[in-house]
Amino acid sequence: MNDITSRSWSLAKRPVGEPQQDDFAISEDNIAAPQKGEIQVRNSWMSVDPYMRGRMYDRESYVPPFQISETLQGGCVGTVTASGHPDFAVGDLVQSMAGWREAWTATPEAFMAVKLPKDTGLPDSAFLGIAGMPGLTAYAGILRVAELKEGDVVFVSGAAGAVGSAVVQIAKIKGCTVIGSAGGAEKVEFVKQLGADACIDYQQTANYDELLAALRAVAPKGIDVYFDNVGGDHFQAAIELARPMARMAICGMISQYNDTDPRPGPNNIIQIVGKQLQIRGFIVSTHSDMQPAFMQDMASWISSGNIRFEETVMEGVENAPAAFMGLFSGRNKGKMLVKLS
Amino acid sequence: MNDITSRSWSLAKRPVGEPQQDDFAISEDNIAAPQKGEIQVRNSWMSVDPYMRGRMYDRESYVPPFQISETLQGGCVGTVTASGHPDFAVGDLVQSMAGWREAWTATPEAFMAVKLPKDTGLPDSAFLGIAGMPGLTAYAGILRVAELKEGDVVFVSGAAGAVGSAVVQIAKIKGCTVIGSAGGAEKVEFVKQLGADACIDYQQTANYDELLAALRAVAPKGIDVYFDNVGGDHFQAAIELARPMARMAICGMISQYNDTDPRPGPNNIIQIVGKQLQIRGFIVSTHSDMQPAFMQDMASWISSGNIRFEETVMEGVENAPAAFMGLFSGRNKGKMLVKLS
Repeated sequence: MNDITSRSWSLAKRPVGEPQQDDFAISEDNIAAPQKGEIQVRNSWMSVDPYMRGRMYDRESYVPPFQISETLQGGCVGTVTASGHPDFAVGDLVQSMAGWREAWTATPEAFMAVKLPKDTGLPDSAFLGIAGMPGLTAYAGILRVAELKEGDVVFVSGAAGAVGSAVVQIAKIKGCTVIGSAGGAEKVEFVKQLGADACIDYQQTANYDELLAALRAVAPKGIDVYFDNVGGDHFQAAIELARPMARMAICGMISQYNDTDPRPGPNNIIQIVGKQLQIRGFIVSTHSDMQPAFMQDMASWISSGNIRFEETVMEGVENAPAAFMGLFSGRNKGKMLVKLS
Repeated sequence: MNDITSRSWSLAKRPVGEPQQDDFAISEDNIAAPQKGEIQVRNSWMSVDPYMRGRMYDRESYVPPFQISETLQGGCVGTVTASGHPDFAVGDLVQSMAGWREAWTATPEAFMAVKLPKDTGLPDSAFLGIAGMPGLTAYAGILRVAELKEGDVVFVSGAAGAVGSAVVQIAKIKGCTVIGSAGGAEKVEFVKQLGADACIDYQQTANYDELLAALRAVAPKGIDVYFDNVGGDHFQAAIELARPMARMAICGMISQYNDTDPRPGPNNIIQIVGKQLQIRGFIVSTHSDMQPAFMQDMASWISSGNIRFEETVMEGVENAPAAFMGLFSGRNKGKMLVKLS
């Protein structure tokens, strides 16, 4: 009874540099009916996120590395199709870490599965974006890690991405001047529509000096806060433009995730001293205590129209690697998602 | 009445790279008797400090640059020889920023002159070191900026210097494991005598890999706190050895002060994210509110023998440039001072 099939993705081999299609392998498995304590779930949406690139390296980090030939994991939303667990009923909407597959049977604990509320007015996919991990990342990063204050001049790299686009809007809500960086005219326009006071197109800059000049033109008095999603030249430019006592929340450095050799760091790092910069890396799970405040604020901001969100959707589990690879070529505007069924 | 002569140093030209003797020019001036509101002071000690190198560049910073042919400034201690100011009497011990000269006449405000207590049991020179700016730098930097906690493994570069040697001892008082780095066997021995659990001799390491290996050998489980006086390879090694949530107080980067070209930053800066590092630059004047607590703690630690201090003294104002240049060749153990009379 209730046996279903599911296609799922694993690593065929570890990517070297930019991930390639043949780094991934698809397989089809039978998904058993749930035993006592288990639930069977059919996923409707799965998330691809930049941080997953880090788990593809075979090295110790804050999350264990993916193993070759084991199904990849990540955020997803689905519906319970059969349940052996007293807290879950058929039809329940479930968020879990059992991504990169169409369906699964396991205990809720195995994939940190939680039931989602049904009366939010939000599309299910929002729990993988603006109302989920990327939204909380933006919220905790800009408010707590960067210690945002009203009136700050805030520079957000990757401003058209899932996290960046939320940071832009939260900073505007909090009364800041917001400068974004994004790749391509369409994304720049999107960031401006979100309320950014200015947004540069880094694809129109040929090198670091041009990037810095473009930023200086829109932030002539410098910046108080930098929210980093990109790293590399963007980080160096942020240090250069930083005012005394500027604060930097380092969320990610997507421009460096595919590096095969160590890359020299910012050549102006010495400015940390004279400008008394505060640079803090962070991981969203460290700030899970902010989840209740985040959900309350975000629900209110979305319903009042103060926060908008965009999704870039690819259809079908077969396109999951393409969606993931698209993160590094900047294919997404807002949250990159795979629609599964 | 009361006119005296004073030799003083100015910049003949701005140093390029390592400062040279002919970057400095000495002159002899008549120091007038004080007018109303002024004091005349004969300096007995002057300080040379690494931060002064930054003021020799013609660039905006947290302190204005030194000007060519204007007398240099810096911390000094002296005795009032004539007074036109009601709060200062002949014989008073005065600390001020009127260094690089033997005597001066000015309002106290012009050089931030303050009277020093006479009953401290400390030598006058201590107010330029352990009981002065370098001591407060160590105190504020390790306790507040680095948020030191009992049980931390602390790595201090430049551990034999004025600031570093104080950091080593404060961290030991607070119940930490302390790893130092210093240049040469004599300094390494000094740092160990101060209580450091281990100290490496960076002069015995030929490159970054050897430096990292030497540090790893004495901090096999990594570090929780890094107090940076050196920058460069030391900073990169600290990032490499940092445990999750490690905190770094960036006080100075003396290895980079004479750079003539921008130097690539740490090639492992991306670890800021995964390890959630907190990196903070600081300047002591920002933390002047800690001065009363510092003086109370430091007086108690010195009198109880928990804090020792060492001075490297050069005699005569004519040797002030040599003393300053000696900072960059590591000539000093503890505080580098010039005895003036």
